[in-house]
Amino acid sequence: MPKFPEPISNLINEFNKLPGIGPKTSERFVFYLLKQPKEEISRLSQVLENLKDKITYCSACQNISEKNPCYICSDQRRDKKVICVVAESHDMASIENTGEYKGLYHVLGGDLNPLEGITPDRLKIKELLARVKNDGVKEIILALNPDLEGESTILYLTKILKPLNIKTTRLARGLPMGSDLEYADEVTLSNALKGRLEI
Amino acid sequence: MPKFPEPISNLINEFNKLPGIGPKTSERFVFYLLKQPKEEISRLSQVLENLKDKITYCSACQNISEKNPCYICSDQRRDKKVICVVAESHDMASIENTGEYKGLYHVLGGDLNPLEGITPDRLKIKELLARVKNDGVKEIILALNPDLEGESTILYLTKILKPLNIKTTRLARGLPMGSDLEYADEVTLSNALKGRLEI
Repeated sequence: MPKFPEPISNLINEFNKLPGIGPKTSERFVFYLLKQPKEEISRLSQVLENLKDKITYCSACQNISEKNPCYICSDQRRDKKVICVVAESHDMASIENTGEYKGLYHVLGGDLNPLEGITPDRLKIKELLARVKNDGVKEIILALNPDLEGESTILYLTKILKPLNIKTTRLARGLPMGSDLEYADEVTLSNALKGRLEI
Repeated sequence: MPKFPEPISNLINEFNKLPGIGPKTSERFVFYLLKQPKEEISRLSQVLENLKDKITYCSACQNISEKNPCYICSDQRRDKKVICVVAESHDMASIENTGEYKGLYHVLGGDLNPLEGITPDRLKIKELLARVKNDGVKEIILALNPDLEGESTILYLTKILKPLNIKTTRLARGLPMGSDLEYADEVTLSNALKGRLEI
């Protein structure tokens, strides 16, 4: 005999596929939804359909977008001579949140990770090179995660960007705001020392 | 300027409403879904619609079900003289999982909690009394959570079931399997002592 009626166990299975969600949490989601008015469930279902139908990719920066080109690439006020290379769309959103950056972006779609089958041809590197060659770009900022995969991607990109003679920079590494010297790891602290600035 | 295109931020807002899910996790869900084939998103949306359309409540035990009466209430092999009272449908599923219980259930729809506005008239107590009076019930098992709200509900139900002269029992309290005496709290340990069994 089934533990739950089929419509419920089907939804539990679907929620179970979401990252970090196990069967207990999916159950909790479903029972939460069952207590909501039916319109609430309809809305979630409708919004999911919209995600599928209305989201496309910007052919310039490869970012997810409603329009092609996306609102950043088509914004005339932005500096088209600087490209900030990020791994994923949400990294781009984090940088946008700072309000500090006024150039364009390029979303690679991941970091190099040969062990998991993510080789250079799986990332949007060809598209980056095409943009760099055609658009008179002055600077490329490699805003990748300071971890193993991010560092390999930076190394790889630096090597293929070098012959083009374009200024290539990376994000500063050092102590994060609000952190404590006592608890900082050795690599972070040695990066902070190496990158020290005069005041 | 929006952080994400509207279809994305809408879905982030919807996932954000799920219990225990904050904006960062909802973002993660949405970006996970964006990387899935479109059929996967369609399936989730369809399954949500089914939840809304196909789930009803069993008029006997108040459990969520596809049919009315539900598959347990309509199962001729089950003992109709024993009713196990639980707070929520998923508690019922947990008891079913043990495979030990062959009687019927009654889902109250929650525990008494006057501070949060859950008074006796908000629970399916009237329906329980109607069943008990009509169906020749021999035993009522109060399978509620051993916490403040569960205990108050047990007290309240015991009081109104007493005049009916039906055997009323509650689940045993004691040490859970795999636990450690050293780390057991005082209440659990004193319950285990009071409920000790001869071997």
